[in-house]
Amino acid sequence: MNLEDKLMFPKMEKSKQSRFRDRLFEIIFESDTFYGKLFNICLLILILISVALVMFESVDSINAKYHRELVIWEWVITILFTLEYILRLYTVRKPWRYFFSFYGIIDLLSILPTYMGIFYPSSKYLSSIRILRLFRIFRIFGLTDFLRGGNTILLALRNSRAKIVVFLSFVTLIVVVIGSIMYVVEGKHPESGFTSIPTSIYWAVVTLTTVGYGDIAPVTAFGKFLASIVMIIGYGVIAVPTGIVTAEAVKGARKENEPQKNSQVCQHCHDSKHLDGANFCKTCGYPLH
Amino acid sequence: MNLEDKLMFPKMEKSKQSRFRDRLFEIIFESDTFYGKLFNICLLILILISVALVMFESVDSINAKYHRELVIWEWVITILFTLEYILRLYTVRKPWRYFFSFYGIIDLLSILPTYMGIFYPSSKYLSSIRILRLFRIFRIFGLTDFLRGGNTILLALRNSRAKIVVFLSFVTLIVVVIGSIMYVVEGKHPESGFTSIPTSIYWAVVTLTTVGYGDIAPVTAFGKFLASIVMIIGYGVIAVPTGIVTAEAVKGARKENEPQKNSQVCQHCHDSKHLDGANFCKTCGYPLH
Amino acid sequence: MNLEDKLMFPKMEKSKQSRFRDRLFEIIFESDTFYGKLFNICLLILILISVALVMFESVDSINAKYHRELVIWEWVITILFTLEYILRLYTVRKPWRYFFSFYGIIDLLSILPTYMGIFYPSSKYLSSIRILRLFRIFRIFGLTDFLRGGNTILLALRNSRAKIVVFLSFVTLIVVVIGSIMYVVEGKHPESGFTSIPTSIYWAVVTLTTVGYGDIAPVTAFGKFLASIVMIIGYGVIAVPTGIVTAEAVKGARKENEPQKNSQVCQHCHDSKHLDGANFCKTCGYPLH
Amino acid sequence: MNLEDKLMFPKMEKSKQSRFRDRLFEIIFESDTFYGKLFNICLLILILISVALVMFESVDSINAKYHRELVIWEWVITILFTLEYILRLYTVRKPWRYFFSFYGIIDLLSILPTYMGIFYPSSKYLSSIRILRLFRIFRIFGLTDFLRGGNTILLALRNSRAKIVVFLSFVTLIVVVIGSIMYVVEGKHPESGFTSIPTSIYWAVVTLTTVGYGDIAPVTAFGKFLASIVMIIGYGVIAVPTGIVTAEAVKGARKENEPQKNSQVCQHCHDSKHLDGANFCKTCGYPLH
Repeated sequence: MNLEDKLMFPKMEKSKQSRFRDRLFEIIFESDTFYGKLFNICLLILILISVALVMFESVDSINAKYHRELVIWEWVITILFTLEYILRLYTVRKPWRYFFSFYGIIDLLSILPTYMGIFYPSSKYLSSIRILRLFRIFRIFGLTDFLRGGNTILLALRNSRAKIVVFLSFVTLIVVVIGSIMYVVEGKHPESGFTSIPTSIYWAVVTLTTVGYGDIAPVTAFGKFLASIVMIIGYGVIAVPTGIVTAEAVKGARKENEPQKNSQVCQHCHDSKHLDGANFCKTCGYPLH
Repeated sequence: MNLEDKLMFPKMEKSKQSRFRDRLFEIIFESDTFYGKLFNICLLILILISVALVMFESVDSINAKYHRELVIWEWVITILFTLEYILRLYTVRKPWRYFFSFYGIIDLLSILPTYMGIFYPSSKYLSSIRILRLFRIFRIFGLTDFLRGGNTILLALRNSRAKIVVFLSFVTLIVVVIGSIMYVVEGKHPESGFTSIPTSIYWAVVTLTTVGYGDIAPVTAFGKFLASIVMIIGYGVIAVPTGIVTAEAVKGARKENEPQKNSQVCQHCHDSKHLDGANFCKTCGYPLH
Repeated sequence: MNLEDKLMFPKMEKSKQSRFRDRLFEIIFESDTFYGKLFNICLLILILISVALVMFESVDSINAKYHRELVIWEWVITILFTLEYILRLYTVRKPWRYFFSFYGIIDLLSILPTYMGIFYPSSKYLSSIRILRLFRIFRIFGLTDFLRGGNTILLALRNSRAKIVVFLSFVTLIVVVIGSIMYVVEGKHPESGFTSIPTSIYWAVVTLTTVGYGDIAPVTAFGKFLASIVMIIGYGVIAVPTGIVTAEAVKGARKENEPQKNSQVCQHCHDSKHLDGANFCKTCGYPLH
Repeated sequence: MNLEDKLMFPKMEKSKQSRFRDRLFEIIFESDTFYGKLFNICLLILILISVALVMFESVDSINAKYHRELVIWEWVITILFTLEYILRLYTVRKPWRYFFSFYGIIDLLSILPTYMGIFYPSSKYLSSIRILRLFRIFRIFGLTDFLRGGNTILLALRNSRAKIVVFLSFVTLIVVVIGSIMYVVEGKHPESGFTSIPTSIYWAVVTLTTVGYGDIAPVTAFGKFLASIVMIIGYGVIAVPTGIVTAEAVKGARKENEPQKNSQVCQHCHDSKHLDGANFCKTCGYPLH
């Protein structure tokens, strides 16, 4: 907070408490200072340990042996995360904004499952959602190169959002129709696994996405014939989302490459957007520099 | 219908009946008016409910409990859809044109299965084809952004149609040959599942499209070796349809982006390719005409 | 054969026999005349019937009923194809060239399996290779639009041949290494299906190509962990062949689009390869027209 | 070593031993001479034989018959490879540099497993890693066309490295979350195979990569519904790595194609962007300097 800020917000002269809050904010949300770095590295390690604990608890052979230790450690870490969450709410200027932000929701979802586990035991396994908190760590440690990579991907995805939504709704509708037809064809043969339309739709999704578990598979000749057509068409259709995203990515790559043009402004008529290499203003004929 | 239309088609002075028909047309086919919007939203909901009913009926546990209710509701909705279909035929100017249009056929196919279900019980499940009617709803509510996305996809697909057909016919032929060879190699081992050439062709489709159910899989060493070659080649070949559609999509994206240049030539320095709307030569500053 | 040919090859004055041979050539290899069209359509139908026969014979339930009829018809068609093959050899100018051409080999392979079937019964099923003869039919009926599509694909594949070979050899080597490692990890658990290194390599191919039959799958925790890494890497690597072919296809599409430039030649110094829109020769300064 | 080198490194006058070492180096590391070619071809054959031996040994039926022969031959080849490795270390100028180079590590890993096999029998199968030595053979025989293809791929992969790492870490995190949720949903049904969170994560990887073994598959309706969503999203997401690599490949292909322009500017009309080697302005014909 520099002099200018002080002049603009004269009331905000720092009280002792406020200064403590600001230091905490620096430690928790940033990593420029030594303690900030230390805090975030500890957090990173705690998150990884806690996710590992949840996984170990779900493995019967490990849980049978170390159940007590696993439960104790999980509660210790969850209480630490809860304290951290309260501190975050305390130090930010606008708690509600943080509360409803992407990271705020992830932070809350990271501690809730353990408490819910008191009432619904199996729900505690959901606490492995805390692994998503690692996203923030990446951001804090400024792995800019990777962040830029991520941004390029996000941009390509955002630009092709409308097309992807159209494509996915189309796939959803088509999958309902294919599933119903296959149910009519294969439904009488319980060994095929087409026991109901929802199950058949599930089969259609499994097939069109080329996952192909094999727990449901046509057994009649006609069913196999229809399935073959679905697969061959799907083979041609899988190209569509790839084409969409790639076209955006190629467009993005081209923009990065282009020399920065059009930044010239005519001194006489203030027209901009000249072609690359233009010597004179296209609107008034005045020389450009 | 404005004055000009009246002068051109003097006979078409609206009778009372004709005006009623026009209002119905507006309600059923458009969604600009309040009643039009209401009608189409009700239709949207009815379609979703009716598809849900068909699905529920196919699930044995639900059908056992609520069979009566499901059948009654399905008939109610089908009769409503039938009335709607008759009204559509009544209100459009050229019934035959609607009858043979894409949406006309979908509308008919949406009501037929329930009636056919009287004679062939299982065919009634085909009525979930009505979910395709949702396409029209999208169009009516003018989700233009998504429609444009859809059009771009369709355009890329249409432009690469010939290539996709060639590719798919090539895959079809190759699949017959691979299937026959695998039948000769694996046919003597009934546990492999290669029981006939059609079944082996089905296996080839399942494998080349990388679906891989596993109900049919080679068991002999030579069969596995051949299958490996088929898969590795298929891995290289899967790139082809993607490449085709992507090339089209990239071409489309490029056209959208290009600055519009015109064919003006400077009288002084003979430079061409000026931006649209340029008044002076970008190279020598001489006025353009 | 016009006058010029006659002057150049005076000895080839047509004998009665030679004229008959030429007419046969026109009928068998071309489809401009009425009889040529008829012959090729009959051939098309015969090929489809014969492939259908082979398929039917492989289906036990059909073969049990109609074995006699199927065998008789297959021999009739094979003898017809043999006669046709002999006629082809007889009518072409350079029989050896036809014999070793792509279509010549396909034609021979189409009739051999039935004769070999006398000694090795199962080999007769290979005669479904005759379906590849359909390629020629496509060419004869001049479906030029589709042929151009096919050529574009072939061109893109040929241009990226070196890259695809490198990629596939890389995949082959990597698959041997992955297979061996997985055999060491999973080999002691016969229920996993990793019974030998070749089988494990087969698993690696099935996994990397995302086919995933499931007849062989890791059962140990470490095996599953390694398999996950293989799959995630494979997920990133599947992009490579697509990227290669697409880059070629995009390049091809761009070339189609570009205005034909660089065709100007300087009248003074005969320099060519000028930039689009150049008014003066870049080498000698002479005006270009 | 020419005169200039001798003047610069006067001490390096070749002793008899040094000359022998240089000749060995030429034979082992290069293939310009006759003996170099012979050595490398023998090496190529030995590598292929030795990998085949390892594979045969892992097949029970073959191993039962020829165990003695296989073991003897494997030891012979391993000892030959060990001698070769020692010779390589002896002939290179900087042994440590070779020792830690890519090929040095591969060469070492190729002989270690057989020796380790004395203590841990199954580890000897890892010696099939020697197949990676073939990479060097390719390089030595100068299959430049294929090497260039390989380089283009490597370049495209290296340029999109950051994006691929971001994508793969994102997939890793998401897979943990999906696995945990599916474990909570399906964990109570042991027949589904979701026995622990790590196993469920393995399922998520198998599904998202569209491998789909089918050994683990949801059995509850809700589990199938969630799995369908995962697959459909995965279908849209599979486009991302392809888009990334393709964009790079297209960029690379474009650079190869572009005509080389320079930054000369015409003194008369101030036009820029002339072709490399142009002597006169393409627009006004004025000489360029």
